[in-house]
Amino acid sequence: MPIISRRSQETPMSPFRKLAILAEEVKKRGTHVYHLNIGQPDIPTPPLALEKLKNSLPNIIAYAPADGLASTRAALASYYQKYGHAIQADEIMVTAGGSEALQLALYGCFEEGEEVIIAEPFYANYSGFAHIAGVRVKPVVSHIGNGFALPSLAEFEAQIGPKTKGIMLCNPSNPTGTFFPESVIRGLGDLALRYNLFLIIDEVYREFLYDGQTYFSALDLEDLHDHVVIVDSVSKRFSACGARIGMLVTRNEALREAIGRATKLRLSAPVMGQLLTEFMIEEMDAYLPAVADEYVKRRDTLFARLSAIPGVTTYKPGGAFYCFAQLPVDNAEDFCQWLLESFNYRGATVMLSTGHAFYATPGLGLDEVRIAYILNQRDLHAAMDVLEQALLAYPGRKGQNIPT
Amino acid sequence: MPIISRRSQETPMSPFRKLAILAEEVKKRGTHVYHLNIGQPDIPTPPLALEKLKNSLPNIIAYAPADGLASTRAALASYYQKYGHAIQADEIMVTAGGSEALQLALYGCFEEGEEVIIAEPFYANYSGFAHIAGVRVKPVVSHIGNGFALPSLAEFEAQIGPKTKGIMLCNPSNPTGTFFPESVIRGLGDLALRYNLFLIIDEVYREFLYDGQTYFSALDLEDLHDHVVIVDSVSKRFSACGARIGMLVTRNEALREAIGRATKLRLSAPVMGQLLTEFMIEEMDAYLPAVADEYVKRRDTLFARLSAIPGVTTYKPGGAFYCFAQLPVDNAEDFCQWLLESFNYRGATVMLSTGHAFYATPGLGLDEVRIAYILNQRDLHAAMDVLEQALLAYPGRKGQNIPT
Repeated sequence: MPIISRRSQETPMSPFRKLAILAEEVKKRGTHVYHLNIGQPDIPTPPLALEKLKNSLPNIIAYAPADGLASTRAALASYYQKYGHAIQADEIMVTAGGSEALQLALYGCFEEGEEVIIAEPFYANYSGFAHIAGVRVKPVVSHIGNGFALPSLAEFEAQIGPKTKGIMLCNPSNPTGTFFPESVIRGLGDLALRYNLFLIIDEVYREFLYDGQTYFSALDLEDLHDHVVIVDSVSKRFSACGARIGMLVTRNEALREAIGRATKLRLSAPVMGQLLTEFMIEEMDAYLPAVADEYVKRRDTLFARLSAIPGVTTYKPGGAFYCFAQLPVDNAEDFCQWLLESFNYRGATVMLSTGHAFYATPGLGLDEVRIAYILNQRDLHAAMDVLEQALLAYPGRKGQNIPT
Repeated sequence: MPIISRRSQETPMSPFRKLAILAEEVKKRGTHVYHLNIGQPDIPTPPLALEKLKNSLPNIIAYAPADGLASTRAALASYYQKYGHAIQADEIMVTAGGSEALQLALYGCFEEGEEVIIAEPFYANYSGFAHIAGVRVKPVVSHIGNGFALPSLAEFEAQIGPKTKGIMLCNPSNPTGTFFPESVIRGLGDLALRYNLFLIIDEVYREFLYDGQTYFSALDLEDLHDHVVIVDSVSKRFSACGARIGMLVTRNEALREAIGRATKLRLSAPVMGQLLTEFMIEEMDAYLPAVADEYVKRRDTLFARLSAIPGVTTYKPGGAFYCFAQLPVDNAEDFCQWLLESFNYRGATVMLSTGHAFYATPGLGLDEVRIAYILNQRDLHAAMDVLEQALLAYPGRKGQNIPT
């Protein structure tokens, strides 16, 4: 057999694979599994947009231009302009999901062996994409105690070395739900300017912002037009994850030109998804506020329920639809596995994401989990009932694992 | 400004970019441009499949599993089984177009710095994808004189060195339309087995096969299950290029496992395209024969017209919808540019692809062009009228460029 490349075999595996297999087995045995582990919303894609798509599918599903249909790029520009960002259609490249936008950003900004600084915990797949691009992740630790507020700029600065080429941030954050306000973005911008770094911001969750906060996009950092690269997507915003439409937005024309060489090779982003995107943007004013309302209710439910469980440490996330919780268990991975293998409450159990998978530094987050509040209120309550009961019953509860 | 990566700036640019810009300018001035340069068919996507898609779009366009919807993989398996290939659904990974399948194949099979042997001329984007993957292309020259028949196995063997990891072939070929029969595939298979190489076959055009020839897929090479990787796509087959659905098919389970790590990172291939694919496969028996009939007529028209132009060397391609022609000009690139800048016949001109762009070896193909016969008969005839007149009028016609 020919030798399979080391680089592919060493691509970080999804850390949740083992749990996902367990969950499938549990379901086959008839136990219901509440999936609090995934970022797949249960909210309908804008129904009117789907109707419009049905009524306007072309007879030939032909290639779009490599950087996107002109009409889709114009619609996306109108989205950013609505928030006051002076973004033109030609500054937007339509990609196959935010994932491709991120891959292109890494390819365009970093040479192999160069480094990106990211506050941990961070979206687990960043590690995998960095591996494929040959980019090294230098983590800066944030902590559940202050709701994963961004570490000080001095801590970022301490990580900057001769190979550092960029800083990356997801705002609001997957996996913590932490929202980073204008002052934080400006601080990172100053650092990027001072050290001549790219500032890559993943804005996929920017519409999910609670408590009257205002989003500040790095797109509005006046002096950093050549530094800022925005990774964005319609996936979560419009509950259209399978459309596979993302955006890379940058005013750095030379970077767009360099990245454009790669987008031209793969010819086109998905065309039906691009058309759907245009229609979803038409519906956004009617659609998005209700969605954000729904998520804030779920967040409040989750926060109230988690806070009421003895021994659980959490915080009220400001955005996205994720939250971290520190559990009174010795090892969250063992607990997540036990939940699926050995526990059920009223015929159901829950699947959580183990927290350590979102840290690059080994040994961090071992008693933490990420919870995605993508279930409706009733299911979310039921899932919290399960979690509450499970923590009472778990033999590895902190302080209880010593045989008495 | 931060330094943009060298690797992105050095990604091979589309060699046709300059001509494409010229074509747009010409069109703005009111001249019609017959595009014989692109692989975008003018044939409708199966209309019944589009209808079915409209009637079955889900309310939530959710992520599919990373390797594809189970129903889509089953439909694709039925496609291969129809041709007698004993392929199971789990041996198929659904990708974002054949382009992603190719990128994944390069990533999984090759380490950086390893080599792939390809007969030139070959699909120009192979070079770009190889650049991104850090894979070196070792070309073996084929010639228009024998219709770009595959060079001898000895010539392939002569290119095999310690870093050689695979052989790649597009069958039938984009850009030459050459069909490689069973004996050729078996020959390459023997070589792959002998030297422990991957054999990557791009079967995107396998449905477009003329003159009663039978397709032999490397999938049926019994001893090479671990060597053979098929790159495939619904784009050309069903005139659904914008659906962005491709397939990577291999029986090498360890390779699928390694590549699967990368597909999981990018979460999902486009879902609407996957659903459309299922419906298109349902329609294939009613749809594909008529399409192949249409292309064979176009091929015959093209071949007859090209053969009738004095000084043009060509051949009758056995498959796909491309043909090469050697023109009686000193430099085909100058001629293609002149066609757009300085010539029109009855208000129209043609855009061709310059042949040298499909060779890796500098200096080859300088008087050759690739012609895609993706226009209906009437337009194809009109385009050939333009080409015929242009070759009469061109000042750089071979032997005429010396001032008299």
